[in-house]
Amino acid sequence: MNELNLEQLKLWRRQFHKMPEIGWSEFVTTATLISTLREMGYQVLSGKKFLKTDNILGRSQKEVDIGLARAASKGITPELMEEMDGLTGCVAVLDTGIAGPTVGMRFDIDCVAVNESQDLSHYPFAQGFSSQNPGYMHACGHDGHMAIGLGVALWIVTHKTALTGRFKLIFQPAEEGVRGAKPIAEGDVLDDIDYFFSAHLGMGCSSGEIMINPLGFLCTTKLDFRFYGAPAHAGINPHGGANALAGACHCVTQLMAIPRHGEGMTRINVGTLLAGEGRNVIPATASLQLEVRGGNQQINSFMTQQALRTGEGIALGFGLRFEHELMGEAVDLYNDEKLINLVTQIAVKEMGLSPQEGLFGGSEDATVLIKRVQEHGGQAIYFVLGSTIKAGHHEACFDFDEISLLYGVKIFTNCIDYLCQEHQ
Amino acid sequence: MNELNLEQLKLWRRQFHKMPEIGWSEFVTTATLISTLREMGYQVLSGKKFLKTDNILGRSQKEVDIGLARAASKGITPELMEEMDGLTGCVAVLDTGIAGPTVGMRFDIDCVAVNESQDLSHYPFAQGFSSQNPGYMHACGHDGHMAIGLGVALWIVTHKTALTGRFKLIFQPAEEGVRGAKPIAEGDVLDDIDYFFSAHLGMGCSSGEIMINPLGFLCTTKLDFRFYGAPAHAGINPHGGANALAGACHCVTQLMAIPRHGEGMTRINVGTLLAGEGRNVIPATASLQLEVRGGNQQINSFMTQQALRTGEGIALGFGLRFEHELMGEAVDLYNDEKLINLVTQIAVKEMGLSPQEGLFGGSEDATVLIKRVQEHGGQAIYFVLGSTIKAGHHEACFDFDEISLLYGVKIFTNCIDYLCQEHQ
Amino acid sequence: MNELNLEQLKLWRRQFHKMPEIGWSEFVTTATLISTLREMGYQVLSGKKFLKTDNILGRSQKEVDIGLARAASKGITPELMEEMDGLTGCVAVLDTGIAGPTVGMRFDIDCVAVNESQDLSHYPFAQGFSSQNPGYMHACGHDGHMAIGLGVALWIVTHKTALTGRFKLIFQPAEEGVRGAKPIAEGDVLDDIDYFFSAHLGMGCSSGEIMINPLGFLCTTKLDFRFYGAPAHAGINPHGGANALAGACHCVTQLMAIPRHGEGMTRINVGTLLAGEGRNVIPATASLQLEVRGGNQQINSFMTQQALRTGEGIALGFGLRFEHELMGEAVDLYNDEKLINLVTQIAVKEMGLSPQEGLFGGSEDATVLIKRVQEHGGQAIYFVLGSTIKAGHHEACFDFDEISLLYGVKIFTNCIDYLCQEHQ
Amino acid sequence: MNELNLEQLKLWRRQFHKMPEIGWSEFVTTATLISTLREMGYQVLSGKKFLKTDNILGRSQKEVDIGLARAASKGITPELMEEMDGLTGCVAVLDTGIAGPTVGMRFDIDCVAVNESQDLSHYPFAQGFSSQNPGYMHACGHDGHMAIGLGVALWIVTHKTALTGRFKLIFQPAEEGVRGAKPIAEGDVLDDIDYFFSAHLGMGCSSGEIMINPLGFLCTTKLDFRFYGAPAHAGINPHGGANALAGACHCVTQLMAIPRHGEGMTRINVGTLLAGEGRNVIPATASLQLEVRGGNQQINSFMTQQALRTGEGIALGFGLRFEHELMGEAVDLYNDEKLINLVTQIAVKEMGLSPQEGLFGGSEDATVLIKRVQEHGGQAIYFVLGSTIKAGHHEACFDFDEISLLYGVKIFTNCIDYLCQEHQ
Repeated sequence: MNELNLEQLKLWRRQFHKMPEIGWSEFVTTATLISTLREMGYQVLSGKKFLKTDNILGRSQKEVDIGLARAASKGITPELMEEMDGLTGCVAVLDTGIAGPTVGMRFDIDCVAVNESQDLSHYPFAQGFSSQNPGYMHACGHDGHMAIGLGVALWIVTHKTALTGRFKLIFQPAEEGVRGAKPIAEGDVLDDIDYFFSAHLGMGCSSGEIMINPLGFLCTTKLDFRFYGAPAHAGINPHGGANALAGACHCVTQLMAIPRHGEGMTRINVGTLLAGEGRNVIPATASLQLEVRGGNQQINSFMTQQALRTGEGIALGFGLRFEHELMGEAVDLYNDEKLINLVTQIAVKEMGLSPQEGLFGGSEDATVLIKRVQEHGGQAIYFVLGSTIKAGHHEACFDFDEISLLYGVKIFTNCIDYLCQEHQ
Repeated sequence: MNELNLEQLKLWRRQFHKMPEIGWSEFVTTATLISTLREMGYQVLSGKKFLKTDNILGRSQKEVDIGLARAASKGITPELMEEMDGLTGCVAVLDTGIAGPTVGMRFDIDCVAVNESQDLSHYPFAQGFSSQNPGYMHACGHDGHMAIGLGVALWIVTHKTALTGRFKLIFQPAEEGVRGAKPIAEGDVLDDIDYFFSAHLGMGCSSGEIMINPLGFLCTTKLDFRFYGAPAHAGINPHGGANALAGACHCVTQLMAIPRHGEGMTRINVGTLLAGEGRNVIPATASLQLEVRGGNQQINSFMTQQALRTGEGIALGFGLRFEHELMGEAVDLYNDEKLINLVTQIAVKEMGLSPQEGLFGGSEDATVLIKRVQEHGGQAIYFVLGSTIKAGHHEACFDFDEISLLYGVKIFTNCIDYLCQEHQ
Repeated sequence: MNELNLEQLKLWRRQFHKMPEIGWSEFVTTATLISTLREMGYQVLSGKKFLKTDNILGRSQKEVDIGLARAASKGITPELMEEMDGLTGCVAVLDTGIAGPTVGMRFDIDCVAVNESQDLSHYPFAQGFSSQNPGYMHACGHDGHMAIGLGVALWIVTHKTALTGRFKLIFQPAEEGVRGAKPIAEGDVLDDIDYFFSAHLGMGCSSGEIMINPLGFLCTTKLDFRFYGAPAHAGINPHGGANALAGACHCVTQLMAIPRHGEGMTRINVGTLLAGEGRNVIPATASLQLEVRGGNQQINSFMTQQALRTGEGIALGFGLRFEHELMGEAVDLYNDEKLINLVTQIAVKEMGLSPQEGLFGGSEDATVLIKRVQEHGGQAIYFVLGSTIKAGHHEACFDFDEISLLYGVKIFTNCIDYLCQEHQ
Repeated sequence: MNELNLEQLKLWRRQFHKMPEIGWSEFVTTATLISTLREMGYQVLSGKKFLKTDNILGRSQKEVDIGLARAASKGITPELMEEMDGLTGCVAVLDTGIAGPTVGMRFDIDCVAVNESQDLSHYPFAQGFSSQNPGYMHACGHDGHMAIGLGVALWIVTHKTALTGRFKLIFQPAEEGVRGAKPIAEGDVLDDIDYFFSAHLGMGCSSGEIMINPLGFLCTTKLDFRFYGAPAHAGINPHGGANALAGACHCVTQLMAIPRHGEGMTRINVGTLLAGEGRNVIPATASLQLEVRGGNQQINSFMTQQALRTGEGIALGFGLRFEHELMGEAVDLYNDEKLINLVTQIAVKEMGLSPQEGLFGGSEDATVLIKRVQEHGGQAIYFVLGSTIKAGHHEACFDFDEISLLYGVKIFTNCIDYLCQEHQ
C-alpha cells in the first residue's frame, strides 16, 4: 500500500492525466479506481449497484463503444469489464463497525474534449504525463479530484481504528454536461449520508485560498430537441412534406425570447443546430442542443417548461413530430451552516488558507447530490479549493498547482476526523 | 312608372351615388330598392327571407348601428325597418306564369370606405351628386350595377307578356370583402336558377369593350385572428401573464412563410395587426386581419388550413387562447360555355362590342353564387362590362362612363330574351 | 395665507384630485401651483425658464391641445397661459438671503389614464372629490405629492427667518412614462443644489412605515419605433411595396430575444404594436411602443443599443425606413449616505416610523434628477413614504391615507431644519 | 474505331455508369472522353481552354482532391492530368473545312450522391456494371447523355465528307446543382454557334415519346450564406459575443417569407443549416445552403436580391459578418421555333415518336448555354428524350431503357444532316 504524501498524490494525478476519458466512457479510469480502492480494502460498488440507469443522462452509445474498445485494448480484465457492465464510476464503502455518522464525498472523474497542448512550456507535456488520448484532456482538474479522493481513501483505511461510522467515496462519471449526478441521486447510495463533502480545484481561487460558500450557482437543464418532418422536392412540390428546418428556426426565435423572470436570473442558449438534407429538398430533420438556466429551481423549471411548450407549439404549427431528451441537470447550491463553519475552522483557522467570497457563475451537478442528501436529512457542502492555474479551465494549456492536492486531502480528512470525534 | 332610357338609368345611378353605404349597413339603399321594385310589381324578399344568417360574414354591429340610425334619420318607414330586420340586400322575384327557365342576376349594392373627391374636375362633385355620407363613396361602380339591375327589372315587367319562366334579381349586400354572397348561397334562393348572370363595370375594360370570360380569379378566404393572453407588469413580473403581442408577431412570421404551392399561385397577407395595451404591460390581446388566396379551391384551402394550424401552434407555444373568424370568401370562376357563347353572340356580334381577354387578378364573391348555381345544375357567367373610368377602382376620383349602363341593360335583357325564345 | 395643518393639506390634495391631468397637459394644475406659490411669496419659474425643451420626451401635441383647451375653459388667465407657453410644471425658488445650502425637492404632478371608480365605497367619490376629468385619475398619489410640496413651501416661508440658504421646490410634469425629468435635468436649475429630496407615497409601505433606501431600481429607456414601407395590392402585386407590418413583427421577435446580460437584470417589452391599413393591402406603416430596462446604466445602455441595432437591421432587410424616438428615461438610484442617515434619524428615531427594506422593482425618473445633482457635487435621496392604500397604484379604487401627507411634510421640513442648523 | 450501333452505345454508357463522379471531380470521366474523342479525330479543348474560371460555381476543393486522387489511382496519365489542370469537362471540335453552320451540342457528365442499389432486381447491378464508386451513382442518366454524345461524335466523323460547317460537342461538368454551365457560357466557346441542341433522357417521358418544347422551367440561383459572430460562455457572459445561430434562424424565418410575386411562380428553400459549436457556447458560426427560383429571370432576380438583402439586414441587426457565395444558376427556357419545327419533323414525322406536352418543373443549366447562344444570334433547343425508367431520377434503383440511346443519336444526327443540307 502506498503512503499518503504529495508524491503519491502526484503519481495518481498524473496517471489519470495521461488517460483522459469523456463522460460515460471512463472505463479505464473506473477500472483503475476499482482496483486501487479494492486493494486498499474498500467494498466497491459499480454499474447498476449505485446508478439508477433509468436516470442516466446524455450517454452516447458511440462514445461508450469507443471507451469499451479502448478499455479492452488497455488490458482491462474481462471480469472488470463484465462488472462495469457498460457503466462507469464507482462508490467505495468502508464501515468502521463503530456507531457513527455516515460521511459521503464526491470526486468526479471525466475529462473534456480538448486537445492538450504539446508545447514544451506546458508542464504535463514537458514532464511526459500529457494526454495519450488525442482530442481529450483532463483540462478541468478532475484528475486532481480523483487523486484527492484516493488520498482520502488511503487516509481513512490508515486511520480506520480511530474512526467511527461509515464512509462512502463517490467517484462520479460524466460531470461535464451535468449528466452523471442524477442517476446516482436517484439511486439509494446517498440516502443514509449524514455529512457530504464536495469541492472543485481552481475556479478563480489561487493556491492558498479557499471559497467556502460560493454563491451564484445557476440551476440548469440541458435538452436536445429533435423535429421530424417529411421531405419533398423544393421546386416541384414546395407545399409537400413538412419543413423541419423552418420549424426549428422558428423554435429558436421563440426559445431565445422566453421572457425574463422577475425573481432572478435566467439563461437560454441553443448551442447547435443541424438541419436538412440537401439544398433543393424540403428539410425533413432538425436537431438542436440547448440549455436553460435559472437563479433557482423554480425559475429553471419555468424556463424548461417554456422551452418544452415552445417545441410542442412548433410541432403543431408546422406539422412536425417533436422529440426532446433530457441531457443534463444541475440545481442551485445551499451549503449547510454547520459544514460552512467546520470547513472555515479547519481550512482558515487551522490551515491558514485565505477565505474568498464570490460567484460561481456556472453550474455543477454536485448540487444534485447535495440536494438529495439534504432532502434525506443530511448536511452538505461544496467549496472551491484554491489552486493556481496556468490557463483557464477547458483550455489546452490548463494545468493546476499540485500542492493543492495535499490541501484538499487535509481539508477532507480533518473534517472527517472532527465529525468522528464529535460523535464520540 | 319610369321609362327605360339612359336618363332614367343615370337618375337611379346618381341617387345611389349620393347615398353610399358600407357592407351590411346598406339600409337606405335597400329600402330604396325594395320600394322601387315593389312599385314595379315585383315580389321582394328581404332579410332572413333570402339570407341564411348563420353564414353571414364580416358584419360589424357598430357599422350596422350607424346604418340603422342613418336610415331612421332619412325617413325610412318603421314598416320597412322592421321588414329588413337589421339585414340588407333583397331579391326581386317575378313569375311570368308561363313555363320556362328561371333566370337569376346579381347586382351588388355596397360602397367602399373612401372619401370622395371634392375637386371640381370630379364629375359627380361638379354635377352635385357626390357622396353625402363622408368617408364613404361608391368608388367601385356598384351604384351603376344597381341602376342596371333596376333597368333590367323595368324591362322585364314591361315585356312580361312576351316572356316565359321566372326571374330573380338579387341585390347583394357586402360584396367588398367578399362577405355577402355566402349567406345568399347557403340559403335556397339560388337553387332553382337555370341561368345566372353577373358582371362588373370597368375593371380595365373601356367603354365599347367586354371581357366575356375573365381568367385568373383567385379563390380567397378572409380571416380575423385574435389572441388572448394575460397582462403583467413588464418590469416586475415579466414572466407573468401570456404575451399575445409576441405570439401574434411570431404568428405573422410563420404565416408569411406558408410554403408556396407547386400547382398554382398562392397569396398571404396580414393586412393589419393591433396588439397591446400599454408600453410597460405584457400585452394581453392581439388581433390580425388576414387573407389567403389560391389559384384554385384546393390551393386556397391548403393556405387556409396552414394559416389556422399556425394560429393553433402559436396559441399552444405561447399559452394563449386563439380565436378565428371567417370574414369573407370567394372561389374561382368557371363560366359555362353556353353562356359564354350567348354573351359573345349578343355583345360582340349583335351589339358590336370589342372582345377582350385578360386576367381578373383579384377576387369576387359572385363566384360563390355561381358555384352554388352550378352545383344545382344551373349555368352561370360573370363578365366584365367595359366602361372608361377616370381613376382606378377605390380611388377618390373614380367615375365611370354612364353610357355603359345602357350597354349593361341591353346585354342582360337580350340574353333573357334569347333564353325565353329558345324555350318556346 | 393658509395655515399648515392636516386640513389644509387635505384641501390641497382634494383640489388636485378633482382635476387630474395627464403628463405634459397639466395646465390647470400648473396654473394653480404657480398662483398658490406666488401668493406665498415664491419666485416661480415656468416653461422654458426651467425646462430644456430639446430634451422633452414623450410629449403628445394632441394631449397638449386638449389640456390647453381645458385650461382655457377653466378660466386660466391669458397671462398665465402665455407664461406657461405650452409647457407644464414649475419651480418655486426662495432665497433666505443668508449664506447656507441650496436644498432642492421634487414633487411630481401628473395623473394616469385610469377611469376613477364611482362606487360609493370609493372614498374620493363618496366625499365628492373624485376626478372631474373622465378617463383620468390621480391614481398614483401625485396629488398627495403636490399637497406635501405646498405644505413644505408654506412651512419654509413661515420659518424663513430661521432658515439659511436657498430652496428650490420642483413641481415636475410627466413622471408617468419617466418623461419629465430629463428636460429639467438638462437645464441648469439643479446644478447648484447641495441637498436634494424626493419621495413617493405608498409603494408597498403602510402608514407609519418608511423605506429609506429602496433598492432594485431598474434603469429604463422608453422608445417608440416606427417603420415606413410602401403599400401594394396584396393579390395583384404582392411583391410590390415594402411590408412594414412584417418588418415590425420580425423586429419584435428579435427584440424579445435580445440576450440576457451576465452582470445583472434586463427587461424588454414591446407594449403595443399597430400596423397596417387594410386586409388586402401590403402594410405600409407600423409603430411600436417599447421599453428596455437594465440593472444598471451600462446594462440598460446595452439593451438600448441592441434594440436600435435590431430596428436598423430590420429596416435594411425589409427595405423600410426606420424612425425611433426617445419617449422616457430613468436611471438607477444611489442614495447618499449622509441623507440616508439624516432621514433615518428624523423619520425613525424622532418620528417613530417603522423602517422597511425592500426592492422598488419599477423605475422612477427622480433618479435622473438625482444623478444630475450628484454629478454636480450635491447629495440626494429618494425614499418611500408609507401610506396605507385601498387598491394598487394605477387602479380605479386607489386611495391613500391622508395622514401620510402630514408625515411627508414633517420629514421634509425637519430635514431642512437640520441642514440649515448644521450650516450655522 | 468503333462502329455506331446500339451495342457500342451500351458499352460506352455502361463504362461511364461504373465510374460515376460528382460535379467538378469528373477526372476519370473527362480523361476517358478526351482520349476517345481524340482517337476519333477531334480537336479537344479542356480546362481553361473552354472554361472561364472566374465563373466556376459550387466547386468543392475537397471533392476535387478526392477526384484527383481517384484519377491517379485509375492510371490517368500525368499528361492528361496536367492538361485537365484540376478542371473537368471538355469540348470536341471538328471543322469540315466547308462553309456551313456551326452546330453545338451539350452532354452533361456528372453523377449524383446516391448509393446505387445492390439488389439483383436492379439491372446495372445484376449485369455487373453498377457503380464502383460507393455513395455515387449515375442516377440521372448523364451516362446515357455521354454515350449519345460519343455516338453523335462518331457519326459526324464517319459522315464528315458529306457535312458542312463546324461541330462543337460540349461535355459539360457539374450540371447537378446547375453549376457547370456558367463558366462555359462566360467563355467564348459558344459565341459562334448557329444551332444548339441539348436534351435530357426520361423526365416523365417513356420510350417512344418526346417532349419537344417543355415548359415551366424555373430560373434558379443557388446560394450559400455564412454568418460569423463571436463565441461567449452562455451562462456567464450571455451578452458577450455575437450569436450566429440566432441570426441564421431569424434569417431563415425572413427568407421563407420573401413575398410571392404577382407575375409568376417563385420558390425559396433553405435546404440545410449547420450552426454552433457546443451546447453552452454562444454560437459563432452558421452556414446555410439555399436556393431561389422564379418563373422568369426578372422574378428570380427579385428573389435573389431579396435574399441577399435579408442576409445583410440580419448581419447588421445581430452584429455578424455575412458572406454569400453563388453556387449555381439556371435560367428559363425559350426554344427557337425553327428548331422546334425541325425536331418535330424528324422525331415525330420521320421517326414516329409520340409528342408530349408538359411542364418540366425543375431547373437545368443547359438554359444558361442556350441563353448565351441566343444572345449571340444563334438558335437553340432543349427537348426531353423519352426513356422508360425503373425508378425516379436520383433514386437508388434508377435505370433507363437503353434503346433510347439510339433514338437520341438519330435525332441529333438527323438534325445535323438536315441543317447541313439546308445550307448547301
